[in-house]
Amino acid sequence: MAQMKLQVSRRQRATPYTSRVEALGVSGFSVVNHTILPKGFERSVEEDYWHLKNHVQLWDVGCQRQVELRGADAARLAQLMTPRDLRQAEIGQCLYAPMIDADAGMLNDPVILKLAEDRFWFSIADADMLLWAKGLALGMGLDVTVDEADVWPLAVQGPRSDDLMARVFGESVRAIRFFRFDRLELNGREIVTARSGFSRQGGFELYVDGFDFGAEVWDALWQAGDGLELSAGCPNLIERIEGGLLSYGNEMTRDNNPLECGLERYCQLDGSLDYIGMPALRRIAERGPDRMIRGLIFDGDACPACQRPWPLMIDGTQMGYVTSAIWSPRFQRNVALAMIEREHWQHGTAVEVHCEDGRERGGVITELPMEGP
Amino acid sequence: MAQMKLQVSRRQRATPYTSRVEALGVSGFSVVNHTILPKGFERSVEEDYWHLKNHVQLWDVGCQRQVELRGADAARLAQLMTPRDLRQAEIGQCLYAPMIDADAGMLNDPVILKLAEDRFWFSIADADMLLWAKGLALGMGLDVTVDEADVWPLAVQGPRSDDLMARVFGESVRAIRFFRFDRLELNGREIVTARSGFSRQGGFELYVDGFDFGAEVWDALWQAGDGLELSAGCPNLIERIEGGLLSYGNEMTRDNNPLECGLERYCQLDGSLDYIGMPALRRIAERGPDRMIRGLIFDGDACPACQRPWPLMIDGTQMGYVTSAIWSPRFQRNVALAMIEREHWQHGTAVEVHCEDGRERGGVITELPMEGP
Repeated sequence: MAQMKLQVSRRQRATPYTSRVEALGVSGFSVVNHTILPKGFERSVEEDYWHLKNHVQLWDVGCQRQVELRGADAARLAQLMTPRDLRQAEIGQCLYAPMIDADAGMLNDPVILKLAEDRFWFSIADADMLLWAKGLALGMGLDVTVDEADVWPLAVQGPRSDDLMARVFGESVRAIRFFRFDRLELNGREIVTARSGFSRQGGFELYVDGFDFGAEVWDALWQAGDGLELSAGCPNLIERIEGGLLSYGNEMTRDNNPLECGLERYCQLDGSLDYIGMPALRRIAERGPDRMIRGLIFDGDACPACQRPWPLMIDGTQMGYVTSAIWSPRFQRNVALAMIEREHWQHGTAVEVHCEDGRERGGVITELPMEGP
Repeated sequence: MAQMKLQVSRRQRATPYTSRVEALGVSGFSVVNHTILPKGFERSVEEDYWHLKNHVQLWDVGCQRQVELRGADAARLAQLMTPRDLRQAEIGQCLYAPMIDADAGMLNDPVILKLAEDRFWFSIADADMLLWAKGLALGMGLDVTVDEADVWPLAVQGPRSDDLMARVFGESVRAIRFFRFDRLELNGREIVTARSGFSRQGGFELYVDGFDFGAEVWDALWQAGDGLELSAGCPNLIERIEGGLLSYGNEMTRDNNPLECGLERYCQLDGSLDYIGMPALRRIAERGPDRMIRGLIFDGDACPACQRPWPLMIDGTQMGYVTSAIWSPRFQRNVALAMIEREHWQHGTAVEVHCEDGRERGGVITELPMEGP
């Protein structure tokens, strides 16, 4: 079932780049935020992995929808929705921010862009944070407008990203710092552009403002790629797992708190900051999380796609579960992300994975990002 | 692009019935509420249409997730979320209910099941109403628990549904009234079962409580099908369009209000009922909606899949758009649902459809459900 046909309708929204990725041979889509996300092109996942690590790719990540908060209470609502301390956040900053409910369950893990003191974009993972923000704003009587911006992110990822971007936008793009954004210009229109992206290979995310402008931006970058081995791409599962990048809905759900997701550094826990879920999160912090996300490297031939959590066993007892897994050509073994009980989460612990092909494979718990050959 | 491969991961959840529909040759999925929905089997959509109209089908509609409200303020929160008057609602009743925001924009169109005076299920279309309800409850300080129930709807649809259900649950199922539910029993476990479903061919929806119980219920129904030409099925686009059944995300989005969606009969508009969006909705009602959903029958050979709204032209000017369309073997013409401006929404109006294959096809506005051969 790893690949099944997807029926597309208006409900599964196209992006401004859909026509471009179709022309370039996109082979499948996922659905994120009611929007289609390319999941592969003509290359294999392994070929795509090596390309991403060596060259530069254009990614249609229009599915990273922007929930915009603006108005007098925008900063207050933004802070209520995350344990991350936004008090010192600067305009031009991107902030990775867990979002939690009153029980400290993970609702999302967006990157927040602070556009102005009273204006924010939440660049969201797969859940309708628009509805959460609107519900809170209405329920609390806040003076804030919450809507989905007509903004369609386009990512440039890979070690030659700066070279490609400089050809289109000038050398100044090289000065954009990590998780900061600048306002670039193309054909008289401004593009909020951050050094960020869902890989560990460097690059940018262009927050293209206006569906009608998207194809023009794609084409300008595409046409500038001569000699850079530029290709269309998409988030790569091998690279993501090795890099320890979490995917909301896969590694974490509402059943997980940010501490067990390894996100403690984004959580203000001293009680001085008011946000939803703060008391619950502090209680968890006091006793320590019961389980934690870890890397896992395991043996056997290439594992199947992980479509539901796989039991992770130690001495015949389940001590966690695998949430994402794939064969790594670099390690020449399978790599995975797993949630593991406290007593067993030390690096080096030997485990057995019960994959959904019915086979058991032995492995060992590792650090994230994974250090390897 | 109408059919593209779908990558399945934990984020796109399987249902208790996924293994069963796979064994029966499911050919594709859609994604609804982060859950996979079968979109076809080995038959064509046309063959499936005739089968549904003549026999009985089992549908995996586990994607119709249940947002449960329970507690002292459950009824209050339920009423706040819909313009439908719930004051006289009875336990055992199912209520189709538009949900709107403060601007009267459609957020969802669930069926609400009143389980008790202080307990409701919202059987939702594709949007995270859990987050809307949780945000409102928290923001307003309501005494209500909001969560997603471990309930996985299974639909029995088609004219022989009563016969199939009676074989498994006894003759008393025939007495269940339309949009009422009863509590049936199988192997000692209770199943809330309503006479309802996303077709006009009659049938039931079984709200199977417990993922672990799902396959057992499916199998009991499947094994009882001898001589009834029972098969696996799914919502059928031809039947849905002819029947005028709307799909949230296709026919309506937050940009639409319930009046233009033809849902006025579910809206209490006299000002005596307090719900979110009431003032905005009353203002729209006073001046009348600017556009309305209509049926459309149009010429030419079989149209392509409608992946984005198609312009609907009258005398060279756009006067609306088509949201869903397909060839109808019964009408031997294309059928569609369309949103049409007030001046032109009369039945019989001649229009021209600009399909996404670049071709223009002439048609005429019709009533819903469509009366035909």
